[in-house]
Amino acid sequence: MINIHDIDTVELDMEEGSLVIIDQTLLPGRLELLRLKTPEEVWEAIKMLRVRGAPAIGAAAACGIYLAARGFKSADFNGYYREFAQVKQYLESARPTAVNLFWALDRMEKTLLESRGADREEIEAALGREAQGIISEDIRVCHSLGEYALTLTQRGWGLLTHCNAGKLATIRYGTATAPIYLGLERGYNFRVFVDETRPLLQGARLTAYELHSAGADVTLICDNMAASVMKNGQVQAVFTGCDRVAANGDAANKIGTLAVAVLAKRYNIPFYICAPTSSIDMQTLTGEDIVIEERDGSEVTDMWYTEPMSVRGIKVFNPAFDVTDAELITAIVTEKGIAYPPYDASLAEIMKSK
Amino acid sequence: MINIHDIDTVELDMEEGSLVIIDQTLLPGRLELLRLKTPEEVWEAIKMLRVRGAPAIGAAAACGIYLAARGFKSADFNGYYREFAQVKQYLESARPTAVNLFWALDRMEKTLLESRGADREEIEAALGREAQGIISEDIRVCHSLGEYALTLTQRGWGLLTHCNAGKLATIRYGTATAPIYLGLERGYNFRVFVDETRPLLQGARLTAYELHSAGADVTLICDNMAASVMKNGQVQAVFTGCDRVAANGDAANKIGTLAVAVLAKRYNIPFYICAPTSSIDMQTLTGEDIVIEERDGSEVTDMWYTEPMSVRGIKVFNPAFDVTDAELITAIVTEKGIAYPPYDASLAEIMKSK
Repeated sequence: MINIHDIDTVELDMEEGSLVIIDQTLLPGRLELLRLKTPEEVWEAIKMLRVRGAPAIGAAAACGIYLAARGFKSADFNGYYREFAQVKQYLESARPTAVNLFWALDRMEKTLLESRGADREEIEAALGREAQGIISEDIRVCHSLGEYALTLTQRGWGLLTHCNAGKLATIRYGTATAPIYLGLERGYNFRVFVDETRPLLQGARLTAYELHSAGADVTLICDNMAASVMKNGQVQAVFTGCDRVAANGDAANKIGTLAVAVLAKRYNIPFYICAPTSSIDMQTLTGEDIVIEERDGSEVTDMWYTEPMSVRGIKVFNPAFDVTDAELITAIVTEKGIAYPPYDASLAEIMKSK
Repeated sequence: MINIHDIDTVELDMEEGSLVIIDQTLLPGRLELLRLKTPEEVWEAIKMLRVRGAPAIGAAAACGIYLAARGFKSADFNGYYREFAQVKQYLESARPTAVNLFWALDRMEKTLLESRGADREEIEAALGREAQGIISEDIRVCHSLGEYALTLTQRGWGLLTHCNAGKLATIRYGTATAPIYLGLERGYNFRVFVDETRPLLQGARLTAYELHSAGADVTLICDNMAASVMKNGQVQAVFTGCDRVAANGDAANKIGTLAVAVLAKRYNIPFYICAPTSSIDMQTLTGEDIVIEERDGSEVTDMWYTEPMSVRGIKVFNPAFDVTDAELITAIVTEKGIAYPPYDASLAEIMKSK
């Protein structure tokens, strides 16, 4: 039986001409790999959340367009580019709001345009290198972020995380989970508490699963139990991912993150946001500028088997994210270093550095 | 179609010789009444949580033993008492940890012993009055508590509650829901936010249902969304029930209550515990003396339909309660008045008063 850690979340098999992904819709019940070869298969995998998490989606799309390009019929560059543009537009339609999807496909297009004049074989090789580069880069970024985060911990600590900022959202180490994986390799003996993360349970379904599969000491809790484990002295640091960090350090992340940060402050536990610099948006001045997506109430009321979980017709408020105020965040960990308050200055510094 | 508020949670029909309860295991999907006549039926209803909530269980058991007594065969008092004692022991075995069950059955026994020498008809009438008295008393206590709680609110406020300290846990008004019901009768136009209350979803299944059925403006949220509605300024007061209040004001209640209290403090929102004096235990000095029940992890991992919600073999921490520190509690509302800090003095005062 394969272990989830025997494979990266997105792998490009250039010899066979396929993109190998873990089908996340079957987790945690079954671990199945999918070998995708056509743009249609890649589109479907992104659309149906078989591959999810911004970095993983970007990498999958890049691999998808590379594989498609290998089969283009056109002999001349312009025809080849037209075919490329069609596939690009098609893949972009899989999840219109996923920024990394556009970003990765734009990178691939840029590579193609820079190869104008090269022969077909060289163009394909350049596209393959770029797709592979996107994958490698994500692994390097997460690894580096993890190294910095690890310096904030001590052996034997209890750590708490929320949602899935894990391997399954990236290629290998995840962001919030990166120090946990590195700590595991180095015998840090962390005890990790994972919030289940209602309503969609990314913590229970994905984070608990991937950390458990790696051999970490994991304890699953309901979101409303975090206060108890903190009060009991079982948590020495909190690490979460984030969807966007504003220039002042306010951080939008999965709903529930704000509550964890407030609790951490109450119990004097450091609260760390793990954010690749690609998630830091200096154009967003504060968290108030971040629009919070509200999702359908059925996510909250209809996860049970035969019966709805509440009375029919009940109003539901289901925000997908919340914004954690910068003052609640002990530090923001990036692949280029650790930013401490005041964040206006420290984030600007990090964004300027190589 | 009947509305849940057309009937009390436990009703004694002395003419027909039956105890009428709402079958809570079918909620919120179906509202069905059960007419129970035998001790076996009452035992099963308590055991299977068809009737739940400490006050409601106590009342149901008192009615159950009264109905049983009407059918006792013995002509002499000693034989009658032996039959009574057997049924009492049997009903007590339905939920061995429910304090109100013992308390209510002890009251019935005391009534019986005080009737020694009376004729059979008088004894039965006394038992009927006592069972009915337990019901009426609970209604009066909740109503009075609600009146005090209502003085802490203003028209148009947003209120937040956690778990079910509602009608369905008592006879009519509930404790934390009592000000909501009274406010509804008096046009207070509260907007009520109900935490779903993982893992067993008493908030989603019961509280949202009963408040919605009464015509209240109810919004269901996941527990981890409470911080967002507080930060958004949508909540002006929090009311929760409690399982036990210690002499210093520390209060044990459903898991997640502590987090709500910490969040309320952060956002300067008053946090009120609603506690009938029967829940105030002056023998328990502080919350540290309260043992927290841990329940099976499957409650957290196995509520989905076809698949477990996390990986098999995962460790789960599933405490059923947490203790909210007295310093986080703005006031404790009882049927005899409102206790403010310092609680040592104010609770002692309330417990002494008539």
